[in-house]
Amino acid sequence: MSEQRYIVGVDLGGTSINVGVVSYDGSRVLAMRSSPTGADKGPKHVVDRILMMIREAMADAAREADIAPEGFIGIGLGSPGPLDRATGTVIETPNLGWRNFPLRDLVANAIGLPAELDNDANAATLGEWWVGSAKGVDNVVGVTLGTGIGGGIVLGGQVFHGVSDVAGEIGHMSIDSTGRLCKCGNYGCLEAYASGPAIAARALEGLRTGEESLLPSIVDGDVSKITAETVYEGIVAGDPYAKEVMRDTAKFLGAGIANLINLLNPEIVVISGGVTRAGDHLLEPLRHEVRRRAFRRAFEACRIVTSELGNQAGVIGAACVFRRVRFGDL
Amino acid sequence: MSEQRYIVGVDLGGTSINVGVVSYDGSRVLAMRSSPTGADKGPKHVVDRILMMIREAMADAAREADIAPEGFIGIGLGSPGPLDRATGTVIETPNLGWRNFPLRDLVANAIGLPAELDNDANAATLGEWWVGSAKGVDNVVGVTLGTGIGGGIVLGGQVFHGVSDVAGEIGHMSIDSTGRLCKCGNYGCLEAYASGPAIAARALEGLRTGEESLLPSIVDGDVSKITAETVYEGIVAGDPYAKEVMRDTAKFLGAGIANLINLLNPEIVVISGGVTRAGDHLLEPLRHEVRRRAFRRAFEACRIVTSELGNQAGVIGAACVFRRVRFGDL
Repeated sequence: MSEQRYIVGVDLGGTSINVGVVSYDGSRVLAMRSSPTGADKGPKHVVDRILMMIREAMADAAREADIAPEGFIGIGLGSPGPLDRATGTVIETPNLGWRNFPLRDLVANAIGLPAELDNDANAATLGEWWVGSAKGVDNVVGVTLGTGIGGGIVLGGQVFHGVSDVAGEIGHMSIDSTGRLCKCGNYGCLEAYASGPAIAARALEGLRTGEESLLPSIVDGDVSKITAETVYEGIVAGDPYAKEVMRDTAKFLGAGIANLINLLNPEIVVISGGVTRAGDHLLEPLRHEVRRRAFRRAFEACRIVTSELGNQAGVIGAACVFRRVRFGDL
Repeated sequence: MSEQRYIVGVDLGGTSINVGVVSYDGSRVLAMRSSPTGADKGPKHVVDRILMMIREAMADAAREADIAPEGFIGIGLGSPGPLDRATGTVIETPNLGWRNFPLRDLVANAIGLPAELDNDANAATLGEWWVGSAKGVDNVVGVTLGTGIGGGIVLGGQVFHGVSDVAGEIGHMSIDSTGRLCKCGNYGCLEAYASGPAIAARALEGLRTGEESLLPSIVDGDVSKITAETVYEGIVAGDPYAKEVMRDTAKFLGAGIANLINLLNPEIVVISGGVTRAGDHLLEPLRHEVRRRAFRRAFEACRIVTSELGNQAGVIGAACVFRRVRFGDL
């Protein structure tokens, strides 16, 4: 039997749930798995899915690394927010449709392990700080691009939560105060331009005005099936219109990240999410836009990089959240 | 002779310089004075003006409070930024036109006292935290409305500077990424909509499209003389158009402050500057706009108030900066 302790990390997103078993030092992730969230089927469905994934991951990891039952010391949960860490309650999630949902205790009681809850993007950013792209950096901003746009601020190795755990809602920073209505009720939020669904919506708008593109052929002519993934596939296939959609995405993101850089003057901005697979098609115009907009002194002090941990960031970070809250030895 | 120690506080703005002598505990400001900056006459003129004001303030305070020469222990300087605190250099100021200007040492050497430099809005926010509207509050955002829009973030009583002293540049957060060109080179900055000159510019634009208003009569028909102050006078005189200009100002500010609240989740936002004299004509639509835009949990946790210290905030805060850096006993 291994003597090492393990923490189950759960990363709940609007589209996918990721679960893995993380070694106490963050160096290894075992039994990683991913599954669609199915948020439209309601919170009970989602929680059942999470519980099943946790049980399967624990069983697989136990076999794989010879972990005794007492080797699993707890569960870290990352969820879209705003949320209340003290009570473990999800307060409001535009992308899941939940309100005042006691996620932490439902999971802890069902599994029989202590659990801790934090925002998913906070967790992902903490994961990057712990063992990823921002390892050991003092002043980190994380931007997670997915169904929504999340954000995390890590200062001196601590997640900055603000006074009621809402801090870091980068996706709901308006970059166009009279612009697109966002699910959160605000106008012109970064999320309304550069999230996965927003990228797809913008791609579709262009096609409807007659842009020539390979995108319709990728979805067999059913343009309602276009996603951010389709745009990525279009770029790989050399479609100029898909590249243009990505450049526009980079410009919106650049405006948002320039705001963050002028406000928070971080040492590093870590961008994560499937859209980062576009690589330099995203990063090059993004950096150009940030340089154009931010104060030079702040821009020059800041590296803009993509995630090293990919979809494990949220899982590793959630485990880190648990370790932090329960052990405080990090 | 009084035994108490005093610090000279200097608040350098795009339009005015404020200087005062601050008691070591921040409770008293002596020999307060204000003078136009005259930035268009160049940095030497501005520095000479600052030096004269410091000497006069020290002489007046010495008489007034019977302070021995050794009672003056140093000078705190607040300047528009970005700047470099370590070298005491102003790096870039869109509203003064300075670049890489060694303000701290010029003043320290001329007066013969040690000096410390920080951003003017950081200083003002620190002043409000020390003895003003945000006294003792853990998580404070300050917004200074003047020739420019400055910002300060005070966390746990410490100014949050970021990695290269740029953090808190709230005025250069874009709220309309394709909007008005700002002096800083970015587009749609909050400063381009809600600073004093921006308020005047918007007022003038409306008049040119034929809005009926008392404003031209207040400036004897010369509309080029309209300032934010004129708009305030129009409100006092009951001019509906002036009130509309202020409501629009509140909406722009509201979009910006909602961004700050979603990002930083502060306990208090302190707004300062002459435009706050408009009172509820500004604050009521401002709070309404923030409520409409920010996450409820973050909005409800945050008080939005005006400065208690008025134009003394920057002077008191600059003194606090000096005390902090040199004595660390606060």
